Amino acid sequence: MRALVAADGRLDLCERPRPLVPDECLIGVRTAGICGTDLEILAGYAGFRGVPGHEFVGVVEWAPEGADDWLGRRVVGEINIGCGQCRLCREGVREHCERRQVLGIRGRDGAFAEYVALPAHNLHLVPDGLPDDVAVFVEPLAAACRVTEQLDLSRAPAVAVLGDGRLGLLVAQVLRHAGVRVTVIGRHAEKLAIARRFDLEAVAADGAEARRGRFDVVVDASGRPEGLASALALVRPRGTVVLKSTFHGAAPIATSPIVVDEVTIVGSRCGPFAKAIDLLSRGAVEVRPLVSGVYPLSKWRDAFAVARTNLKVLIDMTS
Amino acid sequence: MRALVAADGRLDLCERPRPLVPDECLIGVRTAGICGTDLEILAGYAGFRGVPGHEFVGVVEWAPEGADDWLGRRVVGEINIGCGQCRLCREGVREHCERRQVLGIRGRDGAFAEYVALPAHNLHLVPDGLPDDVAVFVEPLAAACRVTEQLDLSRAPAVAVLGDGRLGLLVAQVLRHAGVRVTVIGRHAEKLAIARRFDLEAVAADGAEARRGRFDVVVDASGRPEGLASALALVRPRGTVVLKSTFHGAAPIATSPIVVDEVTIVGSRCGPFAKAIDLLSRGAVEVRPLVSGVYPLSKWRDAFAVARTNLKVLIDMTS
Repeated sequence: MRALVAADGRLDLCERPRPLVPDECLIGVRTAGICGTDLEILAGYAGFRGVPGHEFVGVVEWAPEGADDWLGRRVVGEINIGCGQCRLCREGVREHCERRQVLGIRGRDGAFAEYVALPAHNLHLVPDGLPDDVAVFVEPLAAACRVTEQLDLSRAPAVAVLGDGRLGLLVAQVLRHAGVRVTVIGRHAEKLAIARRFDLEAVAADGAEARRGRFDVVVDASGRPEGLASALALVRPRGTVVLKSTFHGAAPIATSPIVVDEVTIVGSRCGPFAKAIDLLSRGAVEVRPLVSGVYPLSKWRDAFAVARTNLKVLIDMTS
Repeated sequence: MRALVAADGRLDLCERPRPLVPDECLIGVRTAGICGTDLEILAGYAGFRGVPGHEFVGVVEWAPEGADDWLGRRVVGEINIGCGQCRLCREGVREHCERRQVLGIRGRDGAFAEYVALPAHNLHLVPDGLPDDVAVFVEPLAAACRVTEQLDLSRAPAVAVLGDGRLGLLVAQVLRHAGVRVTVIGRHAEKLAIARRFDLEAVAADGAEARRGRFDVVVDASGRPEGLASALALVRPRGTVVLKSTFHGAAPIATSPIVVDEVTIVGSRCGPFAKAIDLLSRGAVEVRPLVSGVYPLSKWRDAFAVARTNLKVLIDMTS
């Protein structure tokens, strides 16, 4: 099969054998999305070598005994594969299993390929009403929904989302749907304009100066090492900063203001697929305005170049 | 009166007028304690100029009308003086008032002087059974108790305190008293030995390597910029890091592990005086083994030199 393979900061289109894993389903990938984490992997994040890609929609083409019901079904897939033995796996928290694999990020080939393998219990059926270019947003939208599981939003009348990128614009919509007042703070006029099309308040980073220390919650989806410092400047005393972005590198942080203002910082990663599918099915979150382009696998270089400065770029694996 | 005055990173013994503030009590300071924050102020923390010192016990020598009951009473004092007008002050959260003064730290002269002024509502009566050299620990012990207000310790069977200094050894005792299993992790054999005298488990920083990712809660009381990174290495996925130390400077932090492991970081500052007085009165926390020396004000240079590498150093303001 054709697959994009990352090694030593390079990406190349290669021929690879299909990922046939006993006891797992083989999924023919139809569409895959490029995430900020994929771009960071090419910059050295997570030290990953192999096939990246963890946002996809596909069709199950082979299933192990007992999982025959999945055959021919259109699916999306949770990306953490736990060991199944440890305490965390037994408690259902496989995304924090120490020995976990993570699709296209840690120890397991991902979805920028014609086929991907996943255990049946990682799969979610895609409702017929959700086209591929919408369903491919289930994974990142689930990650956005994770924020609502972690926070008591009834105590957060004023929330800022730092970052007007693909992740920020999903998080902002999820929070707005949860009933809070959301302000998107970004650096790109054209992306802020999309936020406004979603009826979100959107302000340029410079214009947010006047609201330093005013937000109950600030979600950092900026994807920048300096995002935490910016978020700390915007949050009120005893407020909460949620960190959503993963990237390669570190930034100097003065921790004393965290102590003095008694701020809480919450790391937030993967989230509930069922909720994301529900939001998309009901049209509660808009994703099509976030698509900056759809490219065939052969044009993967163009796809990644566009993803660096635009919003969501999709790769059509079937063409 | 005689007072230590900080300016531009220097400390000097000077003559100053008594701090006579209308509507506030004038307290003759008997004993004051040197805190890590005082040492950091001399390194530039908080940009403070004036009389430092915020841990004290003294006697009220003058009181405004309506506060006559305080005259002649031995007291300790809460260190935040709010504006009294803003929403936070009206809600009783004056320690986060934007316009607050903080005794010896922000906009108000502190306790390394023969007299200090505070509003009557900042004062707490010291029970007769508590000698000065114990009562002077009320302020830092209250800060240690703040951790128990912020965490649900019933979900934290294994807690580490990073730092075997004066603050770490108070926090560790408070947590142990709250019923959790506490491990003190430090770099000083003689301070770890004191922790063991308190029946706390105590291990050298090198020896903690084997327990990376094992603690439900890690309290960073190390006073070092690299403390957060060390705490993040020790805490389990979905665990909590509490930051207690304030200091001048910043350290590079890679935030991706906070996201990937969904760690919560909680800043923690001032705490409940009543609880601290209660713990000291019942002998539930031992403080005398933490006293590295008592110096008269005239020997303040020796006092500060000893405080840099030892535990709590007290200044006797009456001699």
